[in-house]
Amino acid sequence: MRFVVGVMGPAKAKKKDLENARILGEFIARRGWVVLTGGRDVGVMDAACEGAKRVGGSLTIGVLPTAKDKVSRHVDVPIITEMGSGRNNINVLSSHVVVACGLSGSGTVSEVALAVKAGKPVILVEASAAEVAFFRKLGKRLISTASSPEEAIALIMKQMEGRRRPVRPAEHRDYDELSM
Amino acid sequence: MRFVVGVMGPAKAKKKDLENARILGEFIARRGWVVLTGGRDVGVMDAACEGAKRVGGSLTIGVLPTAKDKVSRHVDVPIITEMGSGRNNINVLSSHVVVACGLSGSGTVSEVALAVKAGKPVILVEASAAEVAFFRKLGKRLISTASSPEEAIALIMKQMEGRRRPVRPAEHRDYDELSM
Amino acid sequence: MRFVVGVMGPAKAKKKDLENARILGEFIARRGWVVLTGGRDVGVMDAACEGAKRVGGSLTIGVLPTAKDKVSRHVDVPIITEMGSGRNNINVLSSHVVVACGLSGSGTVSEVALAVKAGKPVILVEASAAEVAFFRKLGKRLISTASSPEEAIALIMKQMEGRRRPVRPAEHRDYDELSM
Amino acid sequence: MRFVVGVMGPAKAKKKDLENARILGEFIARRGWVVLTGGRDVGVMDAACEGAKRVGGSLTIGVLPTAKDKVSRHVDVPIITEMGSGRNNINVLSSHVVVACGLSGSGTVSEVALAVKAGKPVILVEASAAEVAFFRKLGKRLISTASSPEEAIALIMKQMEGRRRPVRPAEHRDYDELSM
Repeated sequence: MRFVVGVMGPAKAKKKDLENARILGEFIARRGWVVLTGGRDVGVMDAACEGAKRVGGSLTIGVLPTAKDKVSRHVDVPIITEMGSGRNNINVLSSHVVVACGLSGSGTVSEVALAVKAGKPVILVEASAAEVAFFRKLGKRLISTASSPEEAIALIMKQMEGRRRPVRPAEHRDYDELSM
Repeated sequence: MRFVVGVMGPAKAKKKDLENARILGEFIARRGWVVLTGGRDVGVMDAACEGAKRVGGSLTIGVLPTAKDKVSRHVDVPIITEMGSGRNNINVLSSHVVVACGLSGSGTVSEVALAVKAGKPVILVEASAAEVAFFRKLGKRLISTASSPEEAIALIMKQMEGRRRPVRPAEHRDYDELSM
Repeated sequence: MRFVVGVMGPAKAKKKDLENARILGEFIARRGWVVLTGGRDVGVMDAACEGAKRVGGSLTIGVLPTAKDKVSRHVDVPIITEMGSGRNNINVLSSHVVVACGLSGSGTVSEVALAVKAGKPVILVEASAAEVAFFRKLGKRLISTASSPEEAIALIMKQMEGRRRPVRPAEHRDYDELSM
Repeated sequence: MRFVVGVMGPAKAKKKDLENARILGEFIARRGWVVLTGGRDVGVMDAACEGAKRVGGSLTIGVLPTAKDKVSRHVDVPIITEMGSGRNNINVLSSHVVVACGLSGSGTVSEVALAVKAGKPVILVEASAAEVAFFRKLGKRLISTASSPEEAIALIMKQMEGRRRPVRPAEHRDYDELSM
């Protein structure tokens, strides 16, 4: 089973968030991990997949809200949910770790909250102090922060070292116990 | 078609949030509106329905995560989604307005974010300054605040006056245009 | 908690199926039970709700595929799922018993199959011999047949008598054990 | 974007259905296509993925009902929906073509019905005359039959030749127009 990193962020993203997502996607792919996003052809979703596809043999999964959404051309396998924003829960449940590049969108905020609910570790990249405080209060040990894509990758690596057994979905909830 | 008020809040709620939810439920029911909650037998979900059922002829709908959850005995019609937290999106889509009593739970935070995403008006009851600032940044005109259940009801009444036509789901998105 | 009867059937229904659905809706409402349908303003969904609303104090719930669908004007509370046909599973999970008026639609067939999967009793009204044989093979004791709305109601009554305790969703699966 | 073949079938499958699924999975993988299944470690789901993983560089996606289900060890990327049987709709929406190996399970029957509803082509492998008649009545041109995995693959190839442009999810509905 492959290790899956969900990269979340706004459809209307800032330049900095897009660049972070692109680099993150590339770094994730270089590790041999799968990039999972919301799958549309805009914003952080698109940028993370674009970054990943710079790497040969990479795999990008896009979990789409509906069959009518335009899919990012950097998505290898679109999962069509026909669930609108209800698909946000699938995004986080299917990721071993969730990385948020930008929290200006309500969809991304819902995903971070749902990740906390599901006991998934979340890494906030370049989040504001107020945003970090808000989610730390909510998610305690599940929330960590990174000031760059490189630091996010390092956090994921460190977290994986702490794992004794191979990754299985049945163990997703074990992340509750990890301090990142 | 009935007017539906979604009352959201933590499963592990503070005493004050529970009391607010109970009063809100009762006030909503007295107006002849439907109370919609997450349906479980705990926290704000349970309290809002309990308040509503103090009123003869009231109607409470509970949108349950799974068939195994214990249903509040104050729910008239449980909608079983078998969707876990994915049902949070249904809660907000099916409510004409969402009232949050307490934001200490990740499920409730996801619901407020999803409500903003869906263009639904949200009323935060007794939220902290930091919480209000966080969601105002996200939802702008959709977010209003109330310092009591009475004030929340007054806000909903005022909002309804602004509506010209009868309530139809197709018009849910019109709320985007309302300033409450 | 109210007893909920799901009435399913094609959007493009035959005249006979519509008439059966209308009578069923009325009979269900007279018993004080809730009518649950797919909620749209067409076919069996619309007819069943129309029949129910002939009865004072009746309650009709419509579980809609998307926020853009036209809701039957006979629906009291629309549940907006934004899930397309994924909502079919919610329809059957939220009903204590499912009655199918016409099996010419793929949506209805999926609902009967999902009802069997969920262990819900299904009553096929005026189904063809081939249809009955197909679903009997699939659902064994869960599938019963009725040649009229009256007979469907009688079957539900008989089934309810067999129940010892009040209806709770947690007991939905108990229906597996019932022979109707 | 990769071409995705959904292989559906019962959890408690006959020996013949399992063998068909295994061969199908292998043939699909050899073509460079993605195998998508319900992801659990049993029946046709497991067998199709097992067949695919005999081929180097193959990709198997499993769309799981819940986070608690045991995932087939032949699944590369599990998509966790937490939706129970509601995930059946995602299975068919995310597949360009659906192949059913065995129709003895209610879940599989719901998937074929939902595929027809979504306008997806369905290939029934070694189905009985009654089953073929039932689904032909429902899905007309969308339903084709194969007496072996080889014939199923040939049908998919033939269908792909009829396509002028590369595969995009937005075109999924175009299959309505194809006669296979």
